[in-house]
Amino acid sequence: MSAEFTASCPVPLTNYPHVLLAHGGGGRLMQQLIENVFVTAFDNPQLAARHDGATLETAGAQLAFTTDSYVVRPLFFPGGDIGTLAVNGTVNDLAMCGAQPRWLSAGFIIEEGLPMETLQRVAQSMRRTADAAGVQIVTGDTKVVDKGKGDGLFINTAGIGMRAHTGNIGPGVVRPSDAVLLSGDVGRHGMAIMSVREGLEFESPITSDCAPLAAPVLALLDAGIAVHCLRDLTRGGLCAALNEIAAAGRVQVHIEEAAVPVSEPVRGACEILGLDPLSVANEGRFVAFVAAGDADRALEILRSQPVCADAVRIGTVLANSPGLVTMRSRIGVNRVLDLLSGEQLPRIC
Amino acid sequence: MSAEFTASCPVPLTNYPHVLLAHGGGGRLMQQLIENVFVTAFDNPQLAARHDGATLETAGAQLAFTTDSYVVRPLFFPGGDIGTLAVNGTVNDLAMCGAQPRWLSAGFIIEEGLPMETLQRVAQSMRRTADAAGVQIVTGDTKVVDKGKGDGLFINTAGIGMRAHTGNIGPGVVRPSDAVLLSGDVGRHGMAIMSVREGLEFESPITSDCAPLAAPVLALLDAGIAVHCLRDLTRGGLCAALNEIAAAGRVQVHIEEAAVPVSEPVRGACEILGLDPLSVANEGRFVAFVAAGDADRALEILRSQPVCADAVRIGTVLANSPGLVTMRSRIGVNRVLDLLSGEQLPRIC
Repeated sequence: MSAEFTASCPVPLTNYPHVLLAHGGGGRLMQQLIENVFVTAFDNPQLAARHDGATLETAGAQLAFTTDSYVVRPLFFPGGDIGTLAVNGTVNDLAMCGAQPRWLSAGFIIEEGLPMETLQRVAQSMRRTADAAGVQIVTGDTKVVDKGKGDGLFINTAGIGMRAHTGNIGPGVVRPSDAVLLSGDVGRHGMAIMSVREGLEFESPITSDCAPLAAPVLALLDAGIAVHCLRDLTRGGLCAALNEIAAAGRVQVHIEEAAVPVSEPVRGACEILGLDPLSVANEGRFVAFVAAGDADRALEILRSQPVCADAVRIGTVLANSPGLVTMRSRIGVNRVLDLLSGEQLPRIC
Repeated sequence: MSAEFTASCPVPLTNYPHVLLAHGGGGRLMQQLIENVFVTAFDNPQLAARHDGATLETAGAQLAFTTDSYVVRPLFFPGGDIGTLAVNGTVNDLAMCGAQPRWLSAGFIIEEGLPMETLQRVAQSMRRTADAAGVQIVTGDTKVVDKGKGDGLFINTAGIGMRAHTGNIGPGVVRPSDAVLLSGDVGRHGMAIMSVREGLEFESPITSDCAPLAAPVLALLDAGIAVHCLRDLTRGGLCAALNEIAAAGRVQVHIEEAAVPVSEPVRGACEILGLDPLSVANEGRFVAFVAAGDADRALEILRSQPVCADAVRIGTVLANSPGLVTMRSRIGVNRVLDLLSGEQLPRIC
């Protein structure tokens, strides 16, 4: 997920003696926190690769390994719940490493007083989601914290996947002229959460796009598409993902605003709340950077998968301004698509 | 750890419509929660093995996989901090699978307002502890929750280890006549935490026993000792670990109270607070069930490792009363050593 230890550009944290909510929002502050505190302390080649998960090789097996904690509020929302998120989010991080997700761990931090029925609903939901994604929850842990010291339920999942394809996938492999493909419309997960939180009622309710993404990714790899980089569009949305790839890969990413699909309900809700749909979290969308010559075939493969039926090409990689994401707007003006410094929407996943 | 999904004996949760603090304390209630909610929902052979972590086989590699969340209060205590716990705890769960720990993930749930310096101290501590245990933290995640919705800092670590020895290790392999070995004195971690929480001052301060346990375990396996079961003595202490093994292995475990080492400061603190040192958490102690004929040689190997210098044999496996743990007390009376129903000490790890 874009929320992993994948930051760049160390900037001193001295202006922030305390952690702010914005340090978890998927923007520039989160990148600084990760870079200055964690990447610095844990420094090793896997973290330095700035990918969504670690790729590990041992005894001839190629593994992918990733983790995410889920702190979404509310626990249940249109299109999913914290359990579907916790399974699909980690499944998708493994998929973004080009791996077939296989095994998950599940760690539960429960606030004293949580209704037992809530916990049971979430566990059942995790089981259904795991079955649908073809993974097993094989180990776990529970902790209970005092009332007032949690927020109902936090879940961590870590995951192991098997990499069947040996090619490198990551920002370092992205090359000028690569095509930027987007797997579907953006902004639904974040706006589904917001509509519940704010009590907004729309003519057609917005449901989360939460879904497993391993099948379309493996279809691309199995077909021999030259996939250079993959990233799912979680915290910080499309904008954060592209900025991370541009920075880590030292390339310019140029996209066309008009090419990015945004549903009418999402666009309307974003206008009401003053949010940019390109920076809103998704839980079932990803970008794929592929060699230019493979772009049309890759789109065809993606569109044959139900979860990517609306896949489109949204842009191209350029060499001109390494580290920048640029966008030609609907009215034809080119501008820099910068990271938000804080967060639009906290506690979204 | 004893806190994993390793319970037995399903009992209805209907008397508990809400989660209690005691559901996280390592006793009978936690076992019921795990069994009724999680094992039931996620049902698969790895969970059914009732071990501290999952053992997985793929492409010729034998993996162990485990997870734990750490919610200890206070974050810093004599002998360690939440970071040393988060690394050693997961390293030890892998060791208890008979695996060489290799890679960890780290997921941070940070409460808004946490001093940045605290986070940096913890990250540095994790790095030092990982180096000492020979593991790398290769992937991670950060989330920030609103002030009042967390308790400073929660950390989840998941870990992958490589199993070099193919023999099964777990409660199902335990046999009558097996020797029960204990790696050192018990109760120090829990009482170190309590002494800080309660502001107790002792002549000699109690420090946590938090330490990595892979080296002694691998020394046993490398020497060809017939190791049948391993368990580290975390939440619920020695008492919970033995009860879990007796129940899952359908054997009687019989120990001698006088053989269990308890330091004078721990014994004194337990008496003041009315606690049983056999049910107090440890973070650097384990029991090993080995074939009777290998017991002396196993003890010799353990005692050659600094962290197990005081290893002793505390008991024997019997066939008489499957599921029971019995203890001959210091005054020569045999009694059942039962699981506590709730918790002695919450938020201990």
